[in-house]
Amino acid sequence: MAHWQRTRSCGELRAEDAGRQVTLNGWVHSVRSHGDLVFVDLRDRTGIVQLRADAASSPDVLEALAAVKSEFVLSVTGEVQMRAPGMANPKLGTGEIEIHVSEVRILNPCRQPLPFQLNDESQMSLVNEELRLRYRYLDLRRPRMQEILRLRHRVVASMRRFLDSRGFIEVETPIFTRSTPEGARDYLVPYRLSPGLFYALPQSPQQYKQLLMVAGVERYYQIARCFRDEAQRADRQPEFTQLDLEMSFVTQEDVLQLTEDMTIAVLRECSNKRLGSVPFARLTYDDAMLRYGTDKPDLRYGLEIADISEAMRGTSFGVFSDVLASGGVIRCVRYPGGSRLSRRETDDLARLAKEWGARGLAHLAIEDSDGSGHGLTLRGPIAKFISETERERILSAAKAEAGDLLLIVADAADVAATVLGRLRQEIARRLNLAPSDVLHFCWITDFPLVQWNAEENRWDAEHHPFTMPHEDDLPYLDTDPARVRAQCYDIVCNGVEWGSGSIRICRADIQAKVFALLGLSEEVQRERFGHMLDAFAYGAPPHGGVAPGIDRLIMLMTDTENIREVMAFPKIGGGTDPLMGAPSTVDEAQLRELGLRVVSS
Amino acid sequence: MAHWQRTRSCGELRAEDAGRQVTLNGWVHSVRSHGDLVFVDLRDRTGIVQLRADAASSPDVLEALAAVKSEFVLSVTGEVQMRAPGMANPKLGTGEIEIHVSEVRILNPCRQPLPFQLNDESQMSLVNEELRLRYRYLDLRRPRMQEILRLRHRVVASMRRFLDSRGFIEVETPIFTRSTPEGARDYLVPYRLSPGLFYALPQSPQQYKQLLMVAGVERYYQIARCFRDEAQRADRQPEFTQLDLEMSFVTQEDVLQLTEDMTIAVLRECSNKRLGSVPFARLTYDDAMLRYGTDKPDLRYGLEIADISEAMRGTSFGVFSDVLASGGVIRCVRYPGGSRLSRRETDDLARLAKEWGARGLAHLAIEDSDGSGHGLTLRGPIAKFISETERERILSAAKAEAGDLLLIVADAADVAATVLGRLRQEIARRLNLAPSDVLHFCWITDFPLVQWNAEENRWDAEHHPFTMPHEDDLPYLDTDPARVRAQCYDIVCNGVEWGSGSIRICRADIQAKVFALLGLSEEVQRERFGHMLDAFAYGAPPHGGVAPGIDRLIMLMTDTENIREVMAFPKIGGGTDPLMGAPSTVDEAQLRELGLRVVSS
Repeated sequence: MAHWQRTRSCGELRAEDAGRQVTLNGWVHSVRSHGDLVFVDLRDRTGIVQLRADAASSPDVLEALAAVKSEFVLSVTGEVQMRAPGMANPKLGTGEIEIHVSEVRILNPCRQPLPFQLNDESQMSLVNEELRLRYRYLDLRRPRMQEILRLRHRVVASMRRFLDSRGFIEVETPIFTRSTPEGARDYLVPYRLSPGLFYALPQSPQQYKQLLMVAGVERYYQIARCFRDEAQRADRQPEFTQLDLEMSFVTQEDVLQLTEDMTIAVLRECSNKRLGSVPFARLTYDDAMLRYGTDKPDLRYGLEIADISEAMRGTSFGVFSDVLASGGVIRCVRYPGGSRLSRRETDDLARLAKEWGARGLAHLAIEDSDGSGHGLTLRGPIAKFISETERERILSAAKAEAGDLLLIVADAADVAATVLGRLRQEIARRLNLAPSDVLHFCWITDFPLVQWNAEENRWDAEHHPFTMPHEDDLPYLDTDPARVRAQCYDIVCNGVEWGSGSIRICRADIQAKVFALLGLSEEVQRERFGHMLDAFAYGAPPHGGVAPGIDRLIMLMTDTENIREVMAFPKIGGGTDPLMGAPSTVDEAQLRELGLRVVSS
Repeated sequence: MAHWQRTRSCGELRAEDAGRQVTLNGWVHSVRSHGDLVFVDLRDRTGIVQLRADAASSPDVLEALAAVKSEFVLSVTGEVQMRAPGMANPKLGTGEIEIHVSEVRILNPCRQPLPFQLNDESQMSLVNEELRLRYRYLDLRRPRMQEILRLRHRVVASMRRFLDSRGFIEVETPIFTRSTPEGARDYLVPYRLSPGLFYALPQSPQQYKQLLMVAGVERYYQIARCFRDEAQRADRQPEFTQLDLEMSFVTQEDVLQLTEDMTIAVLRECSNKRLGSVPFARLTYDDAMLRYGTDKPDLRYGLEIADISEAMRGTSFGVFSDVLASGGVIRCVRYPGGSRLSRRETDDLARLAKEWGARGLAHLAIEDSDGSGHGLTLRGPIAKFISETERERILSAAKAEAGDLLLIVADAADVAATVLGRLRQEIARRLNLAPSDVLHFCWITDFPLVQWNAEENRWDAEHHPFTMPHEDDLPYLDTDPARVRAQCYDIVCNGVEWGSGSIRICRADIQAKVFALLGLSEEVQRERFGHMLDAFAYGAPPHGGVAPGIDRLIMLMTDTENIREVMAFPKIGGGTDPLMGAPSTVDEAQLRELGLRVVSS
């Protein structure tokens, strides 16, 4: 061991080490100089420890330590000693001790002024994100970022351990594959040996994992890099990582149970957050849309949407009766304590509802007229249209309580769902109903197989074209495609879709039928998916899987809504990397070799 | 659980299961029909079990089983029973039992004739590789391929466990990065939002892992996909996988020791092969070239090259004395038992030596003239030029024994090394000296930092431009670059380079000096590596690492020289995938969106 190499790590030193000689390596986190006494916080990946030197006992060391600056890389040798009485720092694991330094070696100085301070987290929100990413190697030194990197490692390691214990094997699938236009745009890689040919980067290893099932692997997973050339949104990156898994000889129930067991195991191992419900709640798509107005419900709070269409079946209020007559619905959501809202505040909610697509927003304040808790009354512009029977039915359907404001949308079912779903979220946000220390997972099942795309005048796959219909609904493929439910499921947490999966089609005839329903001619089927149809003809086992996002999970665990916080080297804006300067121009010769010319688009 | 789902796996059933009812899922490996008795081998990922049905006890089942064909996917229910006496198959884990089937369900038939048989390994070498890869989902069903996939998983899992236990974390680095022309060609990805800009795919995460050290991660690893657009050779793929690792506050010794500990742990866990030497042998580059004629020596056998230049210093043989006078060397390698070779055979060796660059190949047969084992004599065309003293010196330097043939090259040192190194390999091959059940690892250290590139009239980095020179040799950077040794090391196994690594430069001034030595102007340094020079100015720790290849290790462990055997979905020929049909043409519209036009190159 070289003389400058550490014998211990900074963050691990404790009172019981007092009296020991140690050599430490690390970065200068901060320097506090008091003339004849200097303190330096030295930081390595395990934490921070206080170094000390004073003029009386070691004037040379004092001078050396007083001269170092933030982010110098040091090797120091000294003795662990208890801090003076009253000087302990209970916030630090090493807070009871300090190092009386006898030798300081500068392994590498920090020669430039720092672009931002690394020792003051409170200031970080003020730092421009592009600057942080340009100096990501400094940004990542911050303990918060180190924690995220370590958490990400631990979570993935925990997933792997779980899956290994269940007989899964990780198989690497190619990054260089074939363009199969569907969903997002593919990224392309020009093929030098034959200009005009391109590899495509996989949007997910979907086809490969199904082929691995055909290949008899039976239990596959991969921490898989995926590539989608989408419009950049705050939570999108050109590349992202998912846990891709697939199983053979399974039903939907098996995939759900395994995923749930894994999720619980990983979170119990790696997180202090509570789990909202174990076993995870399960909702059909229809049920989720009805009760929460979304297929990604946040179940950390209640505030279920109530359908009061039946309660209002004979209403004298023209707007409501017109909607019901035209096949629409009347639904409402409770705003607890909302009866106290001002006219301006309810107008504001109505404005939001209209922005989200509603024709209007009615409201009813619930009041406890005699203070008894019984005999609730309604107040508001439409109260006069509501009969006593209707009032009782509404109160019961909405589980309304005194002080509530009922927000009512009468509209087509999908509009009512969307608007009330968003109002429900808005109310929860305002009332702070979603506890931040809870991860509430649920499954959404029984999605429709296809959705009508009015613009393109065709059926689109709701999930992807390899999704198996419910066996019971197979006859409707020909007669009523909208009615076909898919063996497809999403796992949702705190209102965010974490992962999606399905039982896949394993028979060539059903696959061809679904392709045809999606408007693919036989020729196009052969051209794009001939290898899949072939594979299914050689004895494909029943199989299915799921693909939860790694980035997304770490975001949920660390309470960040910025995906860039959970990736070591993310892109910003339109997909650029200010650290490396990517993307960049390339040599003319390189392009010539690829047989490409850049033209104005 | 659905009624057709398995209760047990095929390969796990044993005599103690006799009497149990089981449901199994799997593929028909083979069918043997004897009229009123039928046997089916059913295969799942755990192995093969024999199914049985006979006319007497279950005519319906007999009919159903007799009708299935190879690679049908079945669910069968039946009772585990002991095989009839004398019918056990000791080669099969399940060989003592069979399943008396009571119910057969065809989960999916195999509707096409198989392109090649999966149940006869002896025929596989005859199958065209392109055909195997086109139907890779069938090829991978073969037990041999399943074993390789599982071994690969276990090896990587074992590496991860080891590195986790040593405090390493896995960090994912980007696939979309910046082109830094060096070594092989980069693969490019056109950037849609700004035609003319491109991402490059990383040839390795080299820069990112160094930046992670600057970021204070201290112990990083990644099972990393790497991309190199090289000329296709049998052992190259456009994408491959390496264990990329990097450590801070270390010396070369630390990296070597850690890598060695890991390798031993992984191999003891995952392989039955013996390790050639523990601890691993260590050779300097100079020593390896001298003794084995290569920096990738196969140490499973001896046959060291002997330098007999000193022994021949005053030789009367003109060819030898001329070579010595012009600064060349005389070296030899033993061919045990080679004294019996015919004239034609020695001529053949001479022809090889010339092919490899030698001007000629001399030889001396060693004979035990009186059968006593003492008094060895020399025979051969040049024997007459060799004095008694010279003979004794040669015999001693070469450790020659009776029956040996000494193959002698007199030439420039590098030519002698190359030719004798290859002859040594050829002799070992002919004599089958390299045991196939041994993995003999060694370290090669102290490579030169740079090599003179006569063609381009400049110094090239022997490893890469981030390699740290020996501290002692820093002064020679200015005066005698060829003399500078690098803190650089290769790990070699059985004559194959498995991985390469180095201690890196962590100071901006040394880095700039090395860049300058490699002919990069300050402008080019800023343009290509400005972010690295910047990073080293903000307090970079001493660091180093290594990057052994995953594919390569699995090849060594499974005795294959074909990298395609150890990848699930490899490319062939020039980089094409006959399964997916990649690379392929893309829509004109896609190219237009990218602002690209294909031109004839």
